[in-house]
Order: sequence, then C-alpha cells, then structure tokens
Amino acid sequence: MKLENPTPISWKFSERAEQLQSSVIREILKITQRPEVISFAGGLPSPDTFPVERMRAAFDKVLLENGKTALQYGPTDGYGPLRSFIADSLSTSESTILPEQIMMVSGSQQALDLVGKVLIDKDSKVMVETPSYLGALQAFSVYQPNIVSVDMDEHGLVPASVAAKGEGARLLYALPNFQNPTGRTLSVERRFELVEICARLGVPLIEDNPYGDLCYRGEPLPKLLNMNPGGVIYMGSFSKVLTPGIRLGYVVAPIPLIRKLEQAKQASDLHTSTLTQMAVYEVIKDGFLNEHIPTIRSFYSGQCDVMLAAMTKYFPPTVSWTRPEGGMFIWVTLPAHIDSKKLLDAALLQNVAFVPGGPFYANNPETNTLRLSFVTVSPERINDGIEKLGNLIKAML
Amino acid sequence: MKLENPTPISWKFSERAEQLQSSVIREILKITQRPEVISFAGGLPSPDTFPVERMRAAFDKVLLENGKTALQYGPTDGYGPLRSFIADSLSTSESTILPEQIMMVSGSQQALDLVGKVLIDKDSKVMVETPSYLGALQAFSVYQPNIVSVDMDEHGLVPASVAAKGEGARLLYALPNFQNPTGRTLSVERRFELVEICARLGVPLIEDNPYGDLCYRGEPLPKLLNMNPGGVIYMGSFSKVLTPGIRLGYVVAPIPLIRKLEQAKQASDLHTSTLTQMAVYEVIKDGFLNEHIPTIRSFYSGQCDVMLAAMTKYFPPTVSWTRPEGGMFIWVTLPAHIDSKKLLDAALLQNVAFVPGGPFYANNPETNTLRLSFVTVSPERINDGIEKLGNLIKAML
Repeated sequence: MKLENPTPISWKFSERAEQLQSSVIREILKITQRPEVISFAGGLPSPDTFPVERMRAAFDKVLLENGKTALQYGPTDGYGPLRSFIADSLSTSESTILPEQIMMVSGSQQALDLVGKVLIDKDSKVMVETPSYLGALQAFSVYQPNIVSVDMDEHGLVPASVAAKGEGARLLYALPNFQNPTGRTLSVERRFELVEICARLGVPLIEDNPYGDLCYRGEPLPKLLNMNPGGVIYMGSFSKVLTPGIRLGYVVAPIPLIRKLEQAKQASDLHTSTLTQMAVYEVIKDGFLNEHIPTIRSFYSGQCDVMLAAMTKYFPPTVSWTRPEGGMFIWVTLPAHIDSKKLLDAALLQNVAFVPGGPFYANNPETNTLRLSFVTVSPERINDGIEKLGNLIKAML
Repeated sequence: MKLENPTPISWKFSERAEQLQSSVIREILKITQRPEVISFAGGLPSPDTFPVERMRAAFDKVLLENGKTALQYGPTDGYGPLRSFIADSLSTSESTILPEQIMMVSGSQQALDLVGKVLIDKDSKVMVETPSYLGALQAFSVYQPNIVSVDMDEHGLVPASVAAKGEGARLLYALPNFQNPTGRTLSVERRFELVEICARLGVPLIEDNPYGDLCYRGEPLPKLLNMNPGGVIYMGSFSKVLTPGIRLGYVVAPIPLIRKLEQAKQASDLHTSTLTQMAVYEVIKDGFLNEHIPTIRSFYSGQCDVMLAAMTKYFPPTVSWTRPEGGMFIWVTLPAHIDSKKLLDAALLQNVAFVPGGPFYANNPETNTLRLSFVTVSPERINDGIEKLGNLIKAML
C-alpha cells in the first residue's frame, strides 16, 4: 500500500524557522575534518582531558546499583543530589544558592534556548556583547528579537554602554570569563558595576560561564550570580570541565523564572537523561573536579603559551590579538582592509583553518577579525600553522 | 561583594510562555508516589521490562573501546550507524527510508517541540485527534496555534472529518497505534484514506508511534510513513521498547524538512548525547529488540487482560471502555453526568489514582472520561483498585 505519484508537499516553514541558518562554524568544521588540516577553527575541548575511565566506572556503578531508577523517567528539574551539589558549589558566605533555583539541562545551549523561549517576544530588545557567542545569537534569533550590540573593550563589556542602551531590554547576555570568541575577561571592578546597572534597569542579566573554571592563574573571579542572585540567570556546563558529548549543563535562576523554565523544558523534552545525571554525580560527588580541573588548566595554558609565542614570532606588527587568562580562544584583529574570509580561503589551500570573526557580530560585523582555538592541536602543528598564517597575512598587507 | 537591597525583577514572560502550564499528569504523579497508592495514573513503562544488564554492558563496551569519541561533541543529526539501522528497520519493499531522512532527538517529545518550532506560526491551524496526547498539545501550544480537534471513533481518527476541516492546516498530529490516551488503533482501511486526504490537502501528517511495537496479537499494522514518505513526519522512540530515562528518540521526515529541523535542533541543544546513541546502537545492532519486544508485549498483554476482566466484574453496565490491542492505556467513559475529577477526589481518599480525561481534549473536554494505565501495577492491586473504583462509580450513579 503506497500512494502513487502524490503531489509533493510545498513546505511552509514558520516565520521563526525562516530566520534559522546552519552555524557557520559547523559548516567550516565539516571542511576541516581531514587529518592533514591544522584546524584552529574548532570549539571542541581536547579529548585528552576526558576522564574516560572515571566516566566508565561511574556509568557502571550507577547501572549496577540503581539501574531501574537510572533508566526510568525522572523529574523535569533534574536529579536532586546533583542539583544540591551544584547549589553548594555555587554558594558563598555572602550568598546562598538553593537547589530549588537550579534546573538541569541537556547542555547549556538548551538553557539559552529555554531562556529565549520564555523571555523573548518578537522584536523584544535583547543585549549582547560585541562580538558574542554564536550559539547564543542562534538560539535567541529563533524568537526574533531586536538584538542590540553593547560595547566591549579589553576589560570586557563596557557598563556605561549597557546603561545607555539597556532601558526596556528583556535581557543582557554576557560571557564574563574568557569569552567565546574573544578570550576576554570582565574585570572585577566592572562586574559589580554591571550587576548594579542591570538591577537598576530591571534587566535580567545572563551570566554564561562554560569556561570560568579554566583560569590559567589564580582563582576564578567572583560570579555575577553571587552579587545579585535575584537578578542574574547563571548558566553552567560540564562540557569543558568533564566531557561535552554527554550534553549536561544547568541553569540557575530566581524561583519565578526557574518555574517557568521548568514548564518550557517539560514541553521541550520532558527532562535530561536520568542516567547521565546520576553518573556525573557519581564522578564529581567526592571532589574529583578539584583535582581534575587543574590538569586541564595547565594543559590549555601551555597550549595557549605556544600559540601566543608563535604569533609574536610570525605575525606582522600591524596585527593585534588578545592574551587570554583562561579558556580556549584567542581573538585576532587584522589591519582593517584585510577580510578574514579571504584569508581563510588562502589558508585552507595550505591546510590551515580558523573561524572568521564576522558571524560573531549581531550587528555591523568587523570582517578583519578571526578566532583561533589552541586546545586540540599539538605544539608543533600550532607553530607550523601560525607561521603559515603569518606569511599569508604578510602577503596580503 | 553583594548588591544591597536590589529591586527585585518584575518578570515579564514572553506571550508564548504565558500559555505554558505544568502538565496535569505530572502534578497528579507527584501526589500518587506514596507506595500505598494504587496508581493507574502513570504513563511510565514498567521498569521490570528494562534490559538493565544489557544497557550496562553496552555503556561499558562503548566507553572502553571508543571512550573519547563517545564523550566528544557529535553531529547534530545523530550517530550515523544508529540512523542507518533505523532507516533499514523502517524501510519496506515498497518504500526505502534513507539515513539522511532521520534525525536523532532527545526523546520524541523533542521531535514534537522541534516540529512545532519550524511549522507553527501564531494562529496556524493545527489538527489533532479527539482526545489527543497531552505532551503534544503542550509542545504545540507554546507556538500558539489554533488547535482544531478532529473526530475519532472506535476505529480511530475519522478521515472524513480531516477532509472537512483540513484545508490550510499546517499539520495533522496522529497517534495511530494504541493511542495515548484512548488505546485505540487506526484501522488499516482508514490509514490509506487518511494519507491520501492529507496528500491531496498538502497537509503534513505526523505519525507519532511510541507504542506501535507493543501489539499484543499479530504484527504491527502498516505505517503511514511507508504509504507516503514524502508527506509523513514519523516519530519513533526507544522509551517504550528499551528505557525512557536515557531520552532517545528519532524523527523521520522529507529532506527539506529534516534540514530545517536540524537547524532548529542545533539552536536548541546542539545534538543528543553521543554516548547514549552509541550505547543504544550497541544494544540493538544485532537484533536484540526482536527478542526483547515480545517479552514486553506478553507482559503488558497479561496486565491488560487482568484490568479488563476486573472492569467487567466491578464496573456498572452504564460505563464503557476501550479494549486496546496493544500499548499501555484503557480509556473509560462514565455516564455523562459524572465528572471524573470528582471521582478522582473520592478515589484518592481510598488511595486509588488515575488521570481524568478532560486535559486530553484541545477543545470541549468530555469530563466524564478517564485514562487508566495497567503496566506498573501488580495483578492483585489492579483487581483491588478497579473494585474500589467500581464501587465509587456505583455510588455516584
């Protein structure tokens, strides 16, 4: 029984779906998966940092001891002991975070989608950094906001720019630590000022913090969340400190918002894998991250130093770049007349890849910028790739 | 550093979020988790059917042999070998389903959300069965459609009603096998007619099929998908044939739609757990489901028989109910003047629970209906609970 010669459907997508495009990065990644390509394009953490054996032991233990519970439907807000653990780890002497303020999500990308879903109407004003994380721009754009770009400098987001543009905004999206794509960190002085301005304006402040623990020196800077738990939506992730492929993150928000996010999550996918949550809790409950994170920090810090040294050696003096104090990315600014997309075309011919900066701008892209990731490439190949890039840039001057 | 006496945010939710409510079922489930309650309210599969040891061995093998891949970011459309396996299992001699038409999702609830996201505009006409699956109503309602209820009788959805109401609809949502909540099955004759009507109207037809394999007699009925692969969006799930807590399902759609769904999934949560997909592939790749599913069928069929026999014994003749040929649910119709919510209040006092039928109707709820699940309660307790319900109904006559 099959219909003969049916008229093909002429698909009519929703207005919001018409806005959607594939991530430029994912498209570039498809090209750069050949092993001969030296790719600085990825946003992937290094698999050498994955605690595979620990994860294996944890999944095994959970399935052995609590298999039926781990494989059954679970609560939408997440696995209780894991939420309590996270609440404790986020609390400070000044500010207590309750488990009830926490919802587990399938990677913090889902938190971006859910927050967009419940806070953004068509044409709502939404403030983002300049440039900003592409995945956030993509998640929010589905809900058709009016995205307003807020100024950034080497100390991060400029609070005065938020004050000037923030009236009536539905949210401000910030990535204060080792930002993707720039690697910049919001200074301590500005953090408090920013929280104060947002509270005064009544604008919810999103603190997206996937890289915060990956600081190369000293301790992580104070969280915006702890400065005003009633006004900050905090997003955390296990992708960069444990492994990304399991898709596990969390969102912390004031109770009225977390209840609404929970309803949205229920309609979106009921809940995040019970098994995954229980296994991750098993991995981290006795303080494993305290010993594991320093090993990632020192590995990434070494990789970053290699790239920075190579850039100093091979890049011409008219090129500038950030010196990140953590995270995974360096941001490069070329002389204004060089289009980084053209540089990419030339680089790909020599089997070197990176991400052009344009797509990270919600408005007025600065096409002479680009993002380099240093975490998955060996030191020799970092040197080799940066030398080639340097020569190409010099040829374009 | 903490802000002193900040003005609390007065939360302004999006218009779509204002529509959102918690699932009535989830609310009832919270009440009925006390062990003394005989709950026919759940939609949970029986944990006795979970192949815990197999899942454990599979996670172990994948993490041992391919740990770094399993824990790394993966493609948005899903794990290739699993998609190929599913494509093969859905293909028939008349209709070939390609892996490219398949996207893995975090439970088929996510497929409902993503389809709503890309097909439904505000006030779009969306057709559903009467009554329909609550989770679908919830997922679609976020996108603010005009939901039109299509007639159903004991043979399932009435094709003539679709023909009469379908002009200009953005989709028709159907659950043809052992429907949630009614347990009804769409007859073979009507399947082809329905597919034909939808093709003529140019209306995409969603075939949601979580229970299709759980047929108590004979083989599953032909899929709408295979009757017109260019016009049907098929949703499958591992929740009822393997385990639900891992959150794994899939959506099959014509290429133009699957590409758009992939973009929406990327913005929503990047991809579904690589590890989970690889482990499930490991479990099923050598035909495990062919031996496992019959054990679930025979278990549920026995449970269903116990409940049907008890209903015949204890329910008064003015009550009618469906006799499902598979799945997990029986649908009960009380005399018109009895409100099943009042019956529930009385039943809870005697520690018996079920789900009142009203919330399953998108329009004009029939408040004298209710849903019973027979899969997680022991035969003795089924008998006991049905006797108590029967007595309460008699008292309300």
